Amino acid sequence: MTPPQATATVAPRGLKNLLVADTQIGDVRGEEGFYHYRQYSAIELCEKRTLEDVWYLMLEGRLPSLAERETFIKETAPLREIPPDVAEALPVIAHGGDRFIPLDALRTAVSLTAYTLDFKPVLDCDAQTLRANALHLCALTPTLLTALYRLNRGERPVPPHPKLPYGANYLYMLTGAEPEPRHARAIEQYLTSTIDHGFNASTFTARVITSTGADVGAAITGAIGALSGPLHGGAPSRALEMLDLIGDPDNADAWIRDAVRHGKRIMGFGHRVYRTEDPRAIMLRRVAEELGGDIVEFAERVERTVVDVLAELKPGRRIYTNVEFYAGVVMELCGIPRRMFTPTFASSRVIGWCAHVLEQASDNVLIRPSARYTGPPPPQPIPDPA
Amino acid sequence: MTPPQATATVAPRGLKNLLVADTQIGDVRGEEGFYHYRQYSAIELCEKRTLEDVWYLMLEGRLPSLAERETFIKETAPLREIPPDVAEALPVIAHGGDRFIPLDALRTAVSLTAYTLDFKPVLDCDAQTLRANALHLCALTPTLLTALYRLNRGERPVPPHPKLPYGANYLYMLTGAEPEPRHARAIEQYLTSTIDHGFNASTFTARVITSTGADVGAAITGAIGALSGPLHGGAPSRALEMLDLIGDPDNADAWIRDAVRHGKRIMGFGHRVYRTEDPRAIMLRRVAEELGGDIVEFAERVERTVVDVLAELKPGRRIYTNVEFYAGVVMELCGIPRRMFTPTFASSRVIGWCAHVLEQASDNVLIRPSARYTGPPPPQPIPDPA
Repeated sequence: MTPPQATATVAPRGLKNLLVADTQIGDVRGEEGFYHYRQYSAIELCEKRTLEDVWYLMLEGRLPSLAERETFIKETAPLREIPPDVAEALPVIAHGGDRFIPLDALRTAVSLTAYTLDFKPVLDCDAQTLRANALHLCALTPTLLTALYRLNRGERPVPPHPKLPYGANYLYMLTGAEPEPRHARAIEQYLTSTIDHGFNASTFTARVITSTGADVGAAITGAIGALSGPLHGGAPSRALEMLDLIGDPDNADAWIRDAVRHGKRIMGFGHRVYRTEDPRAIMLRRVAEELGGDIVEFAERVERTVVDVLAELKPGRRIYTNVEFYAGVVMELCGIPRRMFTPTFASSRVIGWCAHVLEQASDNVLIRPSARYTGPPPPQPIPDPA
Repeated sequence: MTPPQATATVAPRGLKNLLVADTQIGDVRGEEGFYHYRQYSAIELCEKRTLEDVWYLMLEGRLPSLAERETFIKETAPLREIPPDVAEALPVIAHGGDRFIPLDALRTAVSLTAYTLDFKPVLDCDAQTLRANALHLCALTPTLLTALYRLNRGERPVPPHPKLPYGANYLYMLTGAEPEPRHARAIEQYLTSTIDHGFNASTFTARVITSTGADVGAAITGAIGALSGPLHGGAPSRALEMLDLIGDPDNADAWIRDAVRHGKRIMGFGHRVYRTEDPRAIMLRRVAEELGGDIVEFAERVERTVVDVLAELKPGRRIYTNVEFYAGVVMELCGIPRRMFTPTFASSRVIGWCAHVLEQASDNVLIRPSARYTGPPPPQPIPDPA
């Protein structure tokens, strides 16, 4: 609704470069190729800490001690279990046959879960209840997601493994087998790297919904919806699909030259914010190299070829791989099906969203902008139906 | 993520008075006590047109001819039927016994419906598909809501009546009986008056989610979540609860004096934007008077008493009833249970949200603001776990 025009300000289109909130959760410095969770380098956290440590950091604002880590694991492990009322509905939610869209099914499952667990409006919760709700959704999301995937394929969901940490348990619930430690650690590092990444559209959605005082489930359901948008979520599977299209490493040069000449988009390269290498790509390339295999060599050859061909055909323009390129390679090596690439990313992003929900709730004001009416001036006379 | 600080602007807290979009859908002029849909007075539309006409206006941008009205009714009536896969899940979604929260259950049902109906991302839809998706959700929401309510009470859902218009059908599906025409028309006017009301937090949420290119279901699911927040949705039942507490019209004066002296909030009075009478309150008072009954006289006596007592105890401060006060009275007179007051309001608001989704999609840019990092400067060294 338009306030008196004299006091209203017009925002930049898409709210670009507009600082709409203060946050202590993290930030991205695109010029430096750096992003951080709280006051720590996100990449360094991926390398030195467990996902549970970083989860604790995001929600509590500080890293846990060894004792706090143990307590946190004991507290969150049982929260992975799907409540019976939700389990009952999952087969219907997971329907859809080949057109199964895991994120859309997850959106429904999270909404139902928050309701089943009796989440109250953020406005009516004390800090402890709010934290408990957030922990519960963070713990449950990987279970919901993997159960939906298996149910859609006609397989029985694999209940969470009480002894496995977050990353290993994710692969276990997806495949039904305890993963090799190197795969578990690779996925843990990937999942840790995607917990948060600046103030993007899904994070903003979670904060707008929270600002109305609605429950944590409403905020996370909305955020999943925003992440499902093609302009936001990205798709690590696209980069692998490009490798499939290239087919053979020896085709790389010709294929990429052809793509560049015809102005086709090369998947897994370039980023809206990073002006240098995406720090996640650097880490994931290293993780992929440690895992090794033909696909890693193929991917590295394609990466070098893209860089070389672009340097030759479009001189002066540097281009780098983004997070999608090696994320796809790492997930493929760890046995994650391509359809689950983007949802895998969403499963740990819930932790980042919840951190923003708690921060918004701790110093809340309704986020309620205005719009400028640009239609014909009202009131026009209403014609009789004719 | 923070862009270089030099180019970033700090938004007002809560984005207050910030014009974040251009819209031709409508506006509120708080100083004048006036709001409009497109170029027409919303109240005049409630009085002169059917809900279907206004629904058409909001989505198409112009009022229908008589022939277009007929075609539109024929097109939308079958869309009210719940798809079988959704119907199967509704009993689980409607669970919760006495702590049934219709809006939260609706959030889940709408999310599931959009998925079941195979809604594609807005970005991948042509205008016709997008319109069809929007129409489908608008038509289905009242059916979903009333089915959830009845299932929660252990009653069978009442399928939509193919011959009844939107308002009459809403009461029919809720109660199982064809309503008296005067009740049907009263509810139709109320539902028409709540289709849109400026650029509030739920409308903004729908547009942010749409801006990512996600499907219409993601946007409406998010908007329902935002509306469920106590700082947004309002609660027409609160005003009636106050009448219950006052108990007897003769108690009104003493009760209100006591409430004002003790600084208690008087429900159903005052509005953030209107500086004069809320135009919806004026219309709904008239609708209530036409329906008549003890409760209307009681409400009017309480209204006069509040105004008189405040004029005496807090001179110089004019206060008016807001939309909640007589909305509660009208819904009670039409036989709507109090638990369904706010959800009733949501059911037609879906039309307004969908109009905004279509408008956003027609000239889209990702809504992606930034935040200002205010924590300790990174990177700090990561301590070893201890």
